[in-house]
Amino acid sequence: MAEPGIRHRVVIVGGGFAGLYAARKLGKDKALEVSLIDRRNYHLFQPLLYQVATGALSPGDIAQPLRAILRRHENTRVILGEAVGLDPIERKVTLSDGGTVEYDSLLVATGARHAYFGRDEWAALAPGLKTIEDATEIRRRILIAYEAAERESDQARRKEWMTFVVVGGGPTGVELAGALGEISRDTLRRDFRSIRPADARVLLVEALDRVLPTYPESLSRSARRQLERLGVTVRTGSRVTAIDDEGIAVSVKDDGVERTERIPTRTVLWAAGVQASSFGRKVADALGAEVDRAGRVPVGPDLTVPGHPEVMILGDLAVARRKNGSAVPGVAPAAIQEGTYAASAILRRVHGRPPEPFRYRDKGDVAVIGRLSGVADIRWMGRFGRTSGFLAWGMWLGVHIVYLIGFANRLVVVIRWAWSFLTHGRGTRLITGEPHLPPIKRPEHL
Amino acid sequence: MAEPGIRHRVVIVGGGFAGLYAARKLGKDKALEVSLIDRRNYHLFQPLLYQVATGALSPGDIAQPLRAILRRHENTRVILGEAVGLDPIERKVTLSDGGTVEYDSLLVATGARHAYFGRDEWAALAPGLKTIEDATEIRRRILIAYEAAERESDQARRKEWMTFVVVGGGPTGVELAGALGEISRDTLRRDFRSIRPADARVLLVEALDRVLPTYPESLSRSARRQLERLGVTVRTGSRVTAIDDEGIAVSVKDDGVERTERIPTRTVLWAAGVQASSFGRKVADALGAEVDRAGRVPVGPDLTVPGHPEVMILGDLAVARRKNGSAVPGVAPAAIQEGTYAASAILRRVHGRPPEPFRYRDKGDVAVIGRLSGVADIRWMGRFGRTSGFLAWGMWLGVHIVYLIGFANRLVVVIRWAWSFLTHGRGTRLITGEPHLPPIKRPEHL
Repeated sequence: MAEPGIRHRVVIVGGGFAGLYAARKLGKDKALEVSLIDRRNYHLFQPLLYQVATGALSPGDIAQPLRAILRRHENTRVILGEAVGLDPIERKVTLSDGGTVEYDSLLVATGARHAYFGRDEWAALAPGLKTIEDATEIRRRILIAYEAAERESDQARRKEWMTFVVVGGGPTGVELAGALGEISRDTLRRDFRSIRPADARVLLVEALDRVLPTYPESLSRSARRQLERLGVTVRTGSRVTAIDDEGIAVSVKDDGVERTERIPTRTVLWAAGVQASSFGRKVADALGAEVDRAGRVPVGPDLTVPGHPEVMILGDLAVARRKNGSAVPGVAPAAIQEGTYAASAILRRVHGRPPEPFRYRDKGDVAVIGRLSGVADIRWMGRFGRTSGFLAWGMWLGVHIVYLIGFANRLVVVIRWAWSFLTHGRGTRLITGEPHLPPIKRPEHL
Repeated sequence: MAEPGIRHRVVIVGGGFAGLYAARKLGKDKALEVSLIDRRNYHLFQPLLYQVATGALSPGDIAQPLRAILRRHENTRVILGEAVGLDPIERKVTLSDGGTVEYDSLLVATGARHAYFGRDEWAALAPGLKTIEDATEIRRRILIAYEAAERESDQARRKEWMTFVVVGGGPTGVELAGALGEISRDTLRRDFRSIRPADARVLLVEALDRVLPTYPESLSRSARRQLERLGVTVRTGSRVTAIDDEGIAVSVKDDGVERTERIPTRTVLWAAGVQASSFGRKVADALGAEVDRAGRVPVGPDLTVPGHPEVMILGDLAVARRKNGSAVPGVAPAAIQEGTYAASAILRRVHGRPPEPFRYRDKGDVAVIGRLSGVADIRWMGRFGRTSGFLAWGMWLGVHIVYLIGFANRLVVVIRWAWSFLTHGRGTRLITGEPHLPPIKRPEHL
């Protein structure tokens, strides 16, 4: 409760969808003093990160400086720093440089990373896709693989370079595999002289029995067909058991008998699993809160941690429940709604209005699979909301442009997409960072 | 001379302006077999690199994959590789992976880097601006400096963080310093809560007695005034004698007496000096060609190396002479003309037509200094071609958009510029790479 003349201090950790939408709503009230802490100086539009990884967009197109977004919110301070500790008694957050930030209300929205199921040594062999650096690294690996294949004279090795494996059949995996299929069939078609990019093999490996397991079965089947049309080989019911420099091993069940198959490849991309951010785990520890297997924190109907009404957990780090008991999914629209709700809840409390519980409005899911195709499940429309192909692709386009932050970014993304669409090109396929050409078996004479 | 049925092999090393324009022209003739070797997979529009370094454009906006540009040239092969040696007897270029490429005609266009005048230890302290990685590193340093100042409570240290020194008063230095002035006065105006970005000091240090020394004196004076209007302190006649972590020392001549002054700063950017690329030096060695102090190779009127009619040196690596004896300047338009000429010369030779000497058409110089201002010297118009302010800025804009490669890039750049112009913003000021927050003297409590 705010005493007169003393401003209520809100600290938000994490400038993703949940944290940013909370900050945007809180930044308008003079009764508050808001601090947004992030390790990065920008908000990243993660749903389009796979397009950076596949050369369709530039990092700057899908990121916007937090200070720029919040510059007009004079009650708000952006702190570039890494939150590393929480003292729930003194109510302060510790930063990695030893600084502290005190709060009256704390919003923790530091998200989640992909998980390697305890096989952390796979991280270097099969990069995941959560940061801009991840995306440019994946882009580098994909492009270097084609370059190496072009230079390679040994047929077996060339085939290894031209095999791409994506692990995980969720939306990120499906979108990555679709883009890889399109790159090989379409984008790079005329770019090489010794190889035919269309000969590339793209495999999507999923442990469950279908891709997009959160979608209705009919759409999973449709997604699979659309992937196969782009030349992607979909391997469901396949669990990864080993990854090394030269390939991947998967365990497949055939009529109840498990057998292991080795796929020689130089490029494995990881789009599976989820684990709480490290600050999220520290918060749970400090508050004595329970966590699920992935380290995420179950929260009450008002998104607070049980026993700590001053701490709310938002976005991918939280396990929020709907009235019917099902979990709110870890998707961008849910994070946006949670962030907006958290800001309202704080404003209600500060201004002495009674609290209301969080209500998730499920707007449905949509995933794109290459040119003019995709799947959409708009749940409030029931069976009629399930579409695939062109209509789903159009919806996806619209939704992503509307939610992209920054007007210039929106225009730039529309132009790049329109241009890619017309020319079948992907303009930002740059190999940046020091170019490490792989050790290839080279011909003596080119 | 091409024997019937045997194709003339042209090898181009370097995909900058000279190499790329040569390749574009050669790629249309079936009598040739063209190979373009570059360490990078993209052509970089270097004149706009300072805009990436200052957050106005994204790397993807000013780079275009070489394979994409040359995809329709079926006689042309792009080789991603680093040329490290030349055998002029066997006529072959060696790559770092041991591969070799044979040639009948060789075009060497590997350019030049900035030079630290023998003080190579300064490279880590004062990064130059030649590659995308340089630009994102400079961007990181500029943005981190403001972030550190915002967190710093010690006044003297805060001032060090808010002092930016640019070494070198040529076009790159002037454009960088102008952009830094604009960032402090305009772009970041409302972004911070503890510092006023407009308090930042931007110094431009030049050893000669004026900035833009290749321009007429009146334009140098105008450029200086325009810089000062943006808050930049211009220090001509000042030679850098030392750089370390915490500052820079310059030697200044006052009435013939030399004195040394120390400027405490955490951010020094290097825009001075020029030295030939390392492959350029190897070529000169292998051919027994003389070089100038910077390692550049003097060439004949047909741009070939004396005694080696089959080897041409193009762009910043070459010292070409005009009829009047003056050197062709190391600028993009000269490189473009040399590349185009080299291609014509080879086509003439292959088709048995007599050679013609290279003629440089000086179109003049133009540099931009922040919003709506700049200087231009359109030499064929004589005194009437010397303008500054809005008109020069407009010319600069037009020329850079026309020469930028890739239609999508052109549109994207126009949108980003228009948007920055309207909002006084710079949308791509992202701190990428692992965020190393500097060790700052932090307040106990924020």
